[in-house]
Amino acid sequence: MRIKQLGERNFLSVEWNDENNTLNLLDQRKIPEKISIKTYIKAEEVSLAIKEMVVRGAPAIGATGAYGLVLALKEAQFLSKAEKKEHLDLHYSLLLSSRPTAVDLKNCLDRVYSVIIKNDYSFDIALEESKKISCEIIEECKKIGIEGNKLIEYNDAILTHCNAGGLATIDYGTALAPIFEAHNQGKNITVYVDETRPRLQGGKITAWELEQVGIKHQIIVDSSVAHFMSKKKINKVIVGADRCLKDGSIVNKIGTQTVAIVAKYFVIPFYTAFPLTTLDVDPKSSVDTIEIEYRGESELKEVQIEDKNYTILNAKSSASNPAFDITSNALIEGYITSLGVIKREDFPLFLSSLKF
Amino acid sequence: MRIKQLGERNFLSVEWNDENNTLNLLDQRKIPEKISIKTYIKAEEVSLAIKEMVVRGAPAIGATGAYGLVLALKEAQFLSKAEKKEHLDLHYSLLLSSRPTAVDLKNCLDRVYSVIIKNDYSFDIALEESKKISCEIIEECKKIGIEGNKLIEYNDAILTHCNAGGLATIDYGTALAPIFEAHNQGKNITVYVDETRPRLQGGKITAWELEQVGIKHQIIVDSSVAHFMSKKKINKVIVGADRCLKDGSIVNKIGTQTVAIVAKYFVIPFYTAFPLTTLDVDPKSSVDTIEIEYRGESELKEVQIEDKNYTILNAKSSASNPAFDITSNALIEGYITSLGVIKREDFPLFLSSLKF
Repeated sequence: MRIKQLGERNFLSVEWNDENNTLNLLDQRKIPEKISIKTYIKAEEVSLAIKEMVVRGAPAIGATGAYGLVLALKEAQFLSKAEKKEHLDLHYSLLLSSRPTAVDLKNCLDRVYSVIIKNDYSFDIALEESKKISCEIIEECKKIGIEGNKLIEYNDAILTHCNAGGLATIDYGTALAPIFEAHNQGKNITVYVDETRPRLQGGKITAWELEQVGIKHQIIVDSSVAHFMSKKKINKVIVGADRCLKDGSIVNKIGTQTVAIVAKYFVIPFYTAFPLTTLDVDPKSSVDTIEIEYRGESELKEVQIEDKNYTILNAKSSASNPAFDITSNALIEGYITSLGVIKREDFPLFLSSLKF
Repeated sequence: MRIKQLGERNFLSVEWNDENNTLNLLDQRKIPEKISIKTYIKAEEVSLAIKEMVVRGAPAIGATGAYGLVLALKEAQFLSKAEKKEHLDLHYSLLLSSRPTAVDLKNCLDRVYSVIIKNDYSFDIALEESKKISCEIIEECKKIGIEGNKLIEYNDAILTHCNAGGLATIDYGTALAPIFEAHNQGKNITVYVDETRPRLQGGKITAWELEQVGIKHQIIVDSSVAHFMSKKKINKVIVGADRCLKDGSIVNKIGTQTVAIVAKYFVIPFYTAFPLTTLDVDPKSSVDTIEIEYRGESELKEVQIEDKNYTILNAKSSASNPAFDITSNALIEGYITSLGVIKREDFPLFLSSLKF
């Protein structure tokens, strides 16, 4: 079940090693400084890797969690059935709590856990199911790329925010998938990459991914989107989504809403790309009930250089650090999915046509 | 001609020392890490200080240039009249070229130069004129504060961008002057300070200035303005301006335009505060002819820690770094000047009432 590689990239962010039954994770915290593949033998280490953000991106975390459960099963191979269950339950909980907000993680863990129970703790079947999850994620992203590419024209200049690329989704990405596909089709495009403070995922990871496959791009500061749009340097926006609500509004990385408002002002179409698992059909979820996660102020005020933290802003000031914001459906031109690009006005019908 | 101090601050960014006829500059590059006052004895060193951004902010640079010329005159005190003129002309040129875009610098140099020539190279009269310039700048900023304060209500939460504070204008500031005044009047206000990438003048200098006088504030990332506005955390915006065009559009620090568009979307009033010298009445100047200065990409890609530069973004990517943007008059609610707050619709009449 070897996955076809994208462009010149010769590794995936999450990959099972069949030779010695271990899990390889690309340490995303080191990008772009270095490509460091870490090998995980124990489930406990995998929980820690998720917590410490060696792996990031909801789909990639989900796939990692599934493999983590497979490692737990391997550890329990010589134990009694009761002990196996106990060990598995322990690591299910540990893995689940490693990142509390990720929906994909719970979905993937539940899926592999139930397969394990159903198949009498079979290691081979559990591993097969985990690989299937990875393949499904990659396949869906590939389709997002093919569908989204239909929107992209020659000489387009596309703005993207944060990183919704191959590392976040094992391969291809969501927002970046149409861009990779357009590039593979020989379309001459330019990507504007806003740096995405405070963690700089745009300037670090997205820029690095585009550089890897030779796509022309420019890093810009987040606040300069109006300038580049007013000067007609950008004619399309594609971002990912961490969650898509029933009314079509999206929860995504802080700054997405600012980009969408500015794009609307300059009449530039704003698209969001995501797998169907990102749809939040919980009747209790809405723009008014979603709670925005606030993170520590050190993320803003400090920069890490060679594993040491330095304060770059006024140390005695407090900082407010929301990790996400909500972009209203009114600002979204269309939704790039594996089933096609859905126009804003068709979104309710699209949603009702899906089975959950 | 000692200037009254603001709040608890016990130094000015630009200050003449009467005891030994030297110039003191606060090294703004070190803020907030440390308060370092540098003493300048020679005109040549003053040119270098402007070039190397020891002093920043158009009015502060203007005042510094004037004192630089006074130092040149002191150096030439034992020379013949012809040699005096030669020495003065040399330093006029050096000072003028130390920062090419600052209009205030040329105005101040011209004013002091002509006073020197008219008064037969009198050191005392030149010094008196230079001090007068500083006082006029400070007085105008003080009036901006008094006028702008009339807009500020109890419990206002005001967003400001970049630094248009006391350091940039010797004292009081432009955008910050109404905020200081409101605080002095006992109004309970909160200031949202966007960090202002790439140079972080908001998170470094503005935050530091507000902390000095004990004004409640929060540093936020530039891209989060929409989030805080949508959550009704911000109800007013006040920024400075590097130039105000005849149609009322302003040229200001990159990101101003983004803030203004988002404020308009959420129907939050956006004000700009500046001295009258910021008005650009040149018939050739307009939104279409203003050329935006692009600075080197290292400003974005690198961070300086303890005088050493470290790359924080993907090193092989290129970056595009406009230093300013243009905010359309349509996005501006009013202009805070020393003559009062001018509403957008009254701006043409206001402009025609001024003598240039």
